[in-house]
Amino acid sequence: MPQIPDTMRASVLRDIQDVEVQERPVPAPGPHEVLVRVEAVGTCGSDTHYYEQGRIGTFVVRDPLVLGHEAGGVVVATGAAAQLHAPGDRVSIEPGQPCFVCAQCRAGRYNLCPDMKFFATPPIDGAFCEYVTVHEQFAHRAPESLSDDATGLIEPLSVGVWACRKGHVGPGSRVLITGSGPIGLVAAQTARAFGASEVVVTDVAAHRLQLAAELAATSTINVAETPLGDAGYEPDVLLECSGVPAAASEAIRAVGRAGRVVLVGMGGEQLALPLAHVQNFEIELTGTFRYANTWPTAIALASNREVDLDRLVTHHFGLAEVPAALTAGATDPKAVKSVVLPQR
Amino acid sequence: MPQIPDTMRASVLRDIQDVEVQERPVPAPGPHEVLVRVEAVGTCGSDTHYYEQGRIGTFVVRDPLVLGHEAGGVVVATGAAAQLHAPGDRVSIEPGQPCFVCAQCRAGRYNLCPDMKFFATPPIDGAFCEYVTVHEQFAHRAPESLSDDATGLIEPLSVGVWACRKGHVGPGSRVLITGSGPIGLVAAQTARAFGASEVVVTDVAAHRLQLAAELAATSTINVAETPLGDAGYEPDVLLECSGVPAAASEAIRAVGRAGRVVLVGMGGEQLALPLAHVQNFEIELTGTFRYANTWPTAIALASNREVDLDRLVTHHFGLAEVPAALTAGATDPKAVKSVVLPQR
Amino acid sequence: MPQIPDTMRASVLRDIQDVEVQERPVPAPGPHEVLVRVEAVGTCGSDTHYYEQGRIGTFVVRDPLVLGHEAGGVVVATGAAAQLHAPGDRVSIEPGQPCFVCAQCRAGRYNLCPDMKFFATPPIDGAFCEYVTVHEQFAHRAPESLSDDATGLIEPLSVGVWACRKGHVGPGSRVLITGSGPIGLVAAQTARAFGASEVVVTDVAAHRLQLAAELAATSTINVAETPLGDAGYEPDVLLECSGVPAAASEAIRAVGRAGRVVLVGMGGEQLALPLAHVQNFEIELTGTFRYANTWPTAIALASNREVDLDRLVTHHFGLAEVPAALTAGATDPKAVKSVVLPQR
Amino acid sequence: MPQIPDTMRASVLRDIQDVEVQERPVPAPGPHEVLVRVEAVGTCGSDTHYYEQGRIGTFVVRDPLVLGHEAGGVVVATGAAAQLHAPGDRVSIEPGQPCFVCAQCRAGRYNLCPDMKFFATPPIDGAFCEYVTVHEQFAHRAPESLSDDATGLIEPLSVGVWACRKGHVGPGSRVLITGSGPIGLVAAQTARAFGASEVVVTDVAAHRLQLAAELAATSTINVAETPLGDAGYEPDVLLECSGVPAAASEAIRAVGRAGRVVLVGMGGEQLALPLAHVQNFEIELTGTFRYANTWPTAIALASNREVDLDRLVTHHFGLAEVPAALTAGATDPKAVKSVVLPQR
Repeated sequence: MPQIPDTMRASVLRDIQDVEVQERPVPAPGPHEVLVRVEAVGTCGSDTHYYEQGRIGTFVVRDPLVLGHEAGGVVVATGAAAQLHAPGDRVSIEPGQPCFVCAQCRAGRYNLCPDMKFFATPPIDGAFCEYVTVHEQFAHRAPESLSDDATGLIEPLSVGVWACRKGHVGPGSRVLITGSGPIGLVAAQTARAFGASEVVVTDVAAHRLQLAAELAATSTINVAETPLGDAGYEPDVLLECSGVPAAASEAIRAVGRAGRVVLVGMGGEQLALPLAHVQNFEIELTGTFRYANTWPTAIALASNREVDLDRLVTHHFGLAEVPAALTAGATDPKAVKSVVLPQR
Repeated sequence: MPQIPDTMRASVLRDIQDVEVQERPVPAPGPHEVLVRVEAVGTCGSDTHYYEQGRIGTFVVRDPLVLGHEAGGVVVATGAAAQLHAPGDRVSIEPGQPCFVCAQCRAGRYNLCPDMKFFATPPIDGAFCEYVTVHEQFAHRAPESLSDDATGLIEPLSVGVWACRKGHVGPGSRVLITGSGPIGLVAAQTARAFGASEVVVTDVAAHRLQLAAELAATSTINVAETPLGDAGYEPDVLLECSGVPAAASEAIRAVGRAGRVVLVGMGGEQLALPLAHVQNFEIELTGTFRYANTWPTAIALASNREVDLDRLVTHHFGLAEVPAALTAGATDPKAVKSVVLPQR
Repeated sequence: MPQIPDTMRASVLRDIQDVEVQERPVPAPGPHEVLVRVEAVGTCGSDTHYYEQGRIGTFVVRDPLVLGHEAGGVVVATGAAAQLHAPGDRVSIEPGQPCFVCAQCRAGRYNLCPDMKFFATPPIDGAFCEYVTVHEQFAHRAPESLSDDATGLIEPLSVGVWACRKGHVGPGSRVLITGSGPIGLVAAQTARAFGASEVVVTDVAAHRLQLAAELAATSTINVAETPLGDAGYEPDVLLECSGVPAAASEAIRAVGRAGRVVLVGMGGEQLALPLAHVQNFEIELTGTFRYANTWPTAIALASNREVDLDRLVTHHFGLAEVPAALTAGATDPKAVKSVVLPQR
Repeated sequence: MPQIPDTMRASVLRDIQDVEVQERPVPAPGPHEVLVRVEAVGTCGSDTHYYEQGRIGTFVVRDPLVLGHEAGGVVVATGAAAQLHAPGDRVSIEPGQPCFVCAQCRAGRYNLCPDMKFFATPPIDGAFCEYVTVHEQFAHRAPESLSDDATGLIEPLSVGVWACRKGHVGPGSRVLITGSGPIGLVAAQTARAFGASEVVVTDVAAHRLQLAAELAATSTINVAETPLGDAGYEPDVLLECSGVPAAASEAIRAVGRAGRVVLVGMGGEQLALPLAHVQNFEIELTGTFRYANTWPTAIALASNREVDLDRLVTHHFGLAEVPAALTAGATDPKAVKSVVLPQR
């Protein structure tokens, strides 16, 4: 095991579009925590949003902030009371630590904990740095079959797992997924892994639909060419991953009797709900907020190749290149997922 | 048992606001049906809507139609293969007969059957007449403790039972009910009977809130005076019974984490869904379309006085007075529920 | 379409171990039925049991009976009111027709209908014959990718689908299956198709475990050599398919906290339930009785090769060879599933 | 607020049937704990069992142990980080503290936490003493309408609430409760509060059945006189509270299709499960192990008198009289629940 240094490099967002690599102390793990050397961190639309806007809704970056919350790495030290890991263990990091004891936590809904501390959500620092600490229970063992990139991308996969759980996707389900970005692509793969017999993915970009078809979709619809309402498709489940309220409204109208709608993508304050359809067909609709208890399932799916995470990675960047990583989507239309390698 | 006549009186809607009492043949029960002498029929907002507008959404009254679907009475004859009832049995009528065999029916969701035949929904005649036939399984035995009126009002009570089931109302639930009309009032009573520890009812009319408080509400809010957003109340369940989309949107914003929203009242084509709240709190929202398998529970609740149906009845009318029954709500602001007595 | 003859051959059980091929009238489909030319019928342990014992529990063969309930074929005629199929459609037959209207049926649990009429269960004839009639809703369209054998074996696959549903098997589940006979083998494949990450199959016969491993099991345990209690395995779900009460008791002791137990195999009147384990771990236990609403899922799984049904077929027999088909398991230890071809 | 003393009296079990009141230090609350002055502690069969046998199953009293886990009292001090309570708050104590972070806890099943620390379960001391500390989240605010006794008896009521939840008891349920001891009596009341329309209680003692009828039962069966199998009763739910395996087996045979069985009472290692009935009727069976997230509901039910806890209390004892409290059931056949008042 290499020695743990006293300081490390961290990519710090100081202001809008102002990122600097700084030297910071390596954190010490608390009693129940482990110290993880970060090997790979996926970039997320929320990171880019903070970088470009300095805020997401009511979350405002007021002090310097380390971004990045899709992280995996290697345990290098363990807290005094931590018992689950040994140095050298490869882990995928679940980036949000709840209070564990409130009513939401005790009911098994820790993702709804009002006191959640979440990586890269002000004022909590994220993982675009060389070392992070995390509760031992939230450092999930990664088998050798998972690449370093994949240990980080278990996080967006968890979003897909949670969406499929909320959608009650199961064997024989007929699933419509609106939006073929990174979340739509993991959701489509997850839906297939959950046994869905049909997975239809929509988007307005042909190359993204092409990737959906290669990875998981049983068919695709380019809604720039064919309005969804004309497609004559009546799914059991809608996983809304486009983040476009108008697309969501139109897609909800397509859902069949007793169908389920899961609003996964964020975007906009309001959605025009087609009231008569929701009532007459008794559609069940919900939204997702992060995830709970998804890591073991997500790791199992990625480990046995039911979900291909590596295929999503189009770009790698070093810690000094975080701004390029966060804007790759804008500069390269073919970009799907950029991964930052903090040790590089 | 009095003899069954060959003909009967029926109140027939011939055109908008044009109702006539006609002499019609008494129907003969099919093999699995029973013939019921109708003793009491509640009037519903949908009856009034057909009377005044000639249509509800895509359901258009093209031919003469008998209105009325909240009916109870006495079995007077049974079909050749019917085995569940004997003449003299008092029954509450479940007014919608599904096909029983399609995928929705076989899944236990017969209310979503695409081939439902429902009383007083064009082109199916309803119960504002002296005799009706109904499938023996949909004529539910009524104990002596139920009044004639109550045998009819089991139908709106079923709406409340279905709403509470969809809302997962149970012991300790904190329930918000928007709208204190007949449906809000049965929903409030049902929520209490389901064990809800708090039932808050809103409306803009003080006298309706007063009745809610007498019957079931643990507290009331007059939203003409106190905007709901200022009430600082965070329910687990919202049963939307006002039918006013703007009220629904505002009420949804009040619902707590992992809360449930049930849109019971019909009205309008769209509802502005507060997207961020639904997602961040993982609210589950659904609508109700009639009900399935509710009669036994509804009869039990009304029989043992956990729900008081008689208290809702403010007016009685004879068969010749159907127009007055259908417009009582407009002419008497204190009207809650009018009941037509076809034998009078 | 070949002409439909007036009479057909049927294999009739006249007494214990006394089967005769008789000429019988081809049945006429009722209004909502279709007439199916039977192409393949799997044999089941219950058929063998009736053949050898003349009864199963309280079901006693008092009159001549046609056995066989795992059937597929081709629609050759349709009843006056049947609308779902046309002659020439290949179908898999769901062999139990409920009353559709009782409380169990209306609740979506038609498999528990007290008035179920089930193929090859006295006094209802089964499918070891050239033609059968079936309700149009219970003749399920079979895609070309399904072999004739597979159209019949959708029935035992439905048992596996129902077991997995009752067991809440899903992505990441760790499933123990006791017994590697035909039902264990379809259950194991189904569990994998439902996303189970671990499927451990037990048996006492090495060749059956070998087949389990080839088809679906992630590992196997020969409980003749390694007692299950020594295996140190703690599954989330137990699907008991051995039909041996002692094996079931021992397996239940292995199940982890909040785990589920599904008793699929029949056998014996009593099972010694390990009470403290069930209570301390809050194990949920249930049994399966046939299935409800499984055909679409089973057809989807078999069509896209997530479950391989053809691989289970070790023997084919003509209609005159039914006794041999029913005793193949006793005469050939390597037999898994025998299929009768009534047109041969 | 009276001053907190340095020492307190505690009733200590030193050996089988050897209890002594000792002077012990008043414990100091940890950061997230509160110090509670204990006002009332119900006695439970498990306390008596430890007192008489020195063990329950694998739990063995090896060191001196304070018994008592049905406790309520008044907060007199709060830990440095505790924020939920102020001195003077009346509270009901949830006596089992889980680790909060393991997989069971995170899934909302904290009652199944392998690291549970539970009052009066070796080696954790209970509440037969003047002061105890408890996590602030597990000291539940008690309204004034709850008596001191009731603050303690919220614990057995929680057993009833958990049983009803596990049994899916709801409006219209027909519930059979075997055993009319303290747990059967709270279960019966809870079932009614959950909306059950029928609650049948069985026992062999007429006076206990009498109390059941007064409190909640819609009817009773003295199974010493009328075997349950002869009663012709087919419940939806069985809550087994007798702890007698033979009674449980017989009662399970009575349960109707798709019914649920909850084994609440402990007793014996094995239960003879009527296999054919469980399978043919698809009975769901489970056991209960303590409870999770029940306190708010239990407090609501007791506060608004849907459940009468005070009525169960037949005896009060001072701290020096713990042996008499633990043996009251043996010495007085009319005893239901004894409460120890530690301040007396």
